[in-house]
Amino acid sequence: MVPTVEWKDGAVRLLDQSRLPEKVEFLDCRDYQTVARAIRELRVRGAPAIGVTAAMGVALGAQSLTATSYDEFARGVTAICEHLAATRPTAVNLFWAIERMKRTLAGLRAQPVVEIKRRLLDESQRILDEDIAMNRALGRHGAALVRDGQTILTHCNAGALATAGYGTALGVVRAAWEQGKRIRVLADETRPVLQGARLTVWELMQDQIPVTLITDSMAGALMKSGLIHLCLVGADRIAANGDVANKIGTYSVAVLAKAHGLPFYVAAPHSTIDLATASGNQIPIEQRKPQEVTSLCGGPPIAPLGADVLNPAFDVTPAEFVTAIITERGVFKPHEIADQFGS
Amino acid sequence: MVPTVEWKDGAVRLLDQSRLPEKVEFLDCRDYQTVARAIRELRVRGAPAIGVTAAMGVALGAQSLTATSYDEFARGVTAICEHLAATRPTAVNLFWAIERMKRTLAGLRAQPVVEIKRRLLDESQRILDEDIAMNRALGRHGAALVRDGQTILTHCNAGALATAGYGTALGVVRAAWEQGKRIRVLADETRPVLQGARLTVWELMQDQIPVTLITDSMAGALMKSGLIHLCLVGADRIAANGDVANKIGTYSVAVLAKAHGLPFYVAAPHSTIDLATASGNQIPIEQRKPQEVTSLCGGPPIAPLGADVLNPAFDVTPAEFVTAIITERGVFKPHEIADQFGS
Repeated sequence: MVPTVEWKDGAVRLLDQSRLPEKVEFLDCRDYQTVARAIRELRVRGAPAIGVTAAMGVALGAQSLTATSYDEFARGVTAICEHLAATRPTAVNLFWAIERMKRTLAGLRAQPVVEIKRRLLDESQRILDEDIAMNRALGRHGAALVRDGQTILTHCNAGALATAGYGTALGVVRAAWEQGKRIRVLADETRPVLQGARLTVWELMQDQIPVTLITDSMAGALMKSGLIHLCLVGADRIAANGDVANKIGTYSVAVLAKAHGLPFYVAAPHSTIDLATASGNQIPIEQRKPQEVTSLCGGPPIAPLGADVLNPAFDVTPAEFVTAIITERGVFKPHEIADQFGS
Repeated sequence: MVPTVEWKDGAVRLLDQSRLPEKVEFLDCRDYQTVARAIRELRVRGAPAIGVTAAMGVALGAQSLTATSYDEFARGVTAICEHLAATRPTAVNLFWAIERMKRTLAGLRAQPVVEIKRRLLDESQRILDEDIAMNRALGRHGAALVRDGQTILTHCNAGALATAGYGTALGVVRAAWEQGKRIRVLADETRPVLQGARLTVWELMQDQIPVTLITDSMAGALMKSGLIHLCLVGADRIAANGDVANKIGTYSVAVLAKAHGLPFYVAAPHSTIDLATASGNQIPIEQRKPQEVTSLCGGPPIAPLGADVLNPAFDVTPAEFVTAIITERGVFKPHEIADQFGS
C-alpha cells in the first residue's frame, strides 16, 4: 500500500483519496491551510487518518512561525490548532491529535523555539507510527473473532486509507488474511461519497484479498440469504457509554445484523474513544452539502435541479447493537470501554 | 404528468425513463422488438407499467402479421408473447398482461384476423385504462392510512411512472395530498439505478408534493430520529402467502420499520398478485449487469476496474414484515390476500 499520509521533503504528502480509484495522485501540502482544506474536501478522510494529518498540519504550521519567544510562538500554534480543529466536527481523533500536539507544546515551555519546532515534528511522526502500531495490535485481537471461510460485511472505508496504515476494520481483515484464513469481504459502496466502492474495494484488491462490491441497499437481503457471517466497521467517535458514531448507514447495518443474529463489531484505537462525551446523542453530526447526493464524482446530475436533500454524514449506533469493540488493548463489550480507557 | 405509455399514431409511445430527470424524451416503438428492448433497458420500468407496455407490444406485433388463417396468426402472436415475456423475470404483471392478451386471442378464434387485430388493440388499451382506475381506487383506500402531518418513506419509484398513471405507493400519496393532508415524502435514492432520485423526486416535484431525497443508507438513522411515520412501497410480485418481491433494498426498509415500530405498507393492484407462486422464495430474482453498480448514468467509473460485484435487482420481504397490502379492492393483511384474490 502507498502511504495515506507522510512527511516528504518538508511537506505533508497526502494520497489524494478524492481521485481514487481512477488516479493515484499525491497532494503536497506546504502550509497548514492546505492541510485543513484537504481534510475539509475529503482528500484525506477516515478518523485516524484525519487525526494524524491534523497533527502533521500543526507541526507544519509551527515550522513557518517567525516568533522567537515561547508565548508568541504558542499563540501562533494555538491559532493553527483552531484552524485545523474547525475542519470537521464528528471524528474525535482530530481533536485528540490536536490536543496531544498542544500538550507537547505546553511541556516544552523551557526549550528554545527551534527545539520546540523539531519536537512538534517528532511528535506528529510518533502519532503516525503509533497509529500503525495500534492498528496492527487491534488487527491481531480482532482476527481471533474471524473464522476460516467467513464472509465479512463492512461499511465505508476503515482501512489503510482511513488510517496512517494497515487499517482498523480492514486491519482485522488483513490480520485474519495473514493468518491464512480464507475470508471474503462484502463492501457496501457507502453512498453518498462511495468510500466503500472507491477505497475499500481498491485497497483490498491491491492486497489481493477477495472483495465483492454491493450497494448499501443489498446488505439486508444478503444477510437473509445467509451470505454474511459478521459485520465489521470502524468508528469516528465512541462515547463513554459505548455508543458509536460512524459513517451514515452504519446504524442500519447494525439493526439488520441484530435482526439476523449476526455479530456487529467496531474496530477502533483509543484515539477514537471519547470519554468526555457521555452518550452518542451528544456527538455532533456533520451535515454535508446536497451536491454529494445529487451528483456523483463529477458525473451528470442524478436528481432534478432544486431537489430538497438531507445529507447527514454520520449516524450513531447505540451500544446495545454493538457486539464488541476491538481495540489495540483487546476486545471489549461497549459498556466496558469507560473502565478500560478511563484515566 | 406526461403519460408513461400510450398508443400514438400507430406506435407504442414510451416516456424514456432512462433519460429522466435530465431530459423528457419519448421513444416511439414501431415494432414489438423495440418494445421488448425498451423493457429490458429500463426505458420503461415499474411492474404495472411493464405489464401495460407488454400488452401493447403484443397488440403492436399482431398488427404486422401477414397471416390470414387464425392458426397461423395465433402462432405468430404466441411467438411475440414469448419474445416479450423473456425480457424481465421478476415483475409478474408482465406475464399477467401477456396471459390476458393470449386469452383475448383464444376467445376470438371465430373472428376474421382483421377483427382480432382490432380487438387486441382494444384489449391493450383496456389494460391501460384499468391500471389507472385501479391505482385511483387503491390510492383512495390507502389514503385512509395516512394522517395529516405525516412523513412517508418510499423506496424506488411506485409512481405514475411505474404504472400507466397515478401510481401505486405514490397513488396513495397523491390521494392523501388531494384530500388536503399536509404530508411529506422521503425518497430513498434507490441504488443502483436511482429510480428514487431520478423518478420519484421528479414526479412529486412536478405535482408540487413536498419531497426530500435521501440515500438508502439514511433511512435507519432517520427512523431512529423520529422523522419517518410510515413506509409505503410498491411491489413487483406478491406471492400467495403475502411475501412481497420489490426493488432491492425494500427488505432492509421493512426490517428497519419493524425495529422502529413503524407501519410498512405495500400498494399494488391485483395484477401484481401471483397466487400461482406459493411463497416469496419461489420468485425468480433478476441479476443485472455489474456496470449498473460500478458506474452511474454515464458518469465516470466509481469502482476499480475489474471489481467483483453482486447486483440482484430485487429482494423478497416476508409477509411478517408487511403491515398491510393496499389494493384496489381495499386494504388487507398479507395472509388475507389468497382468499381475497382467489378465484
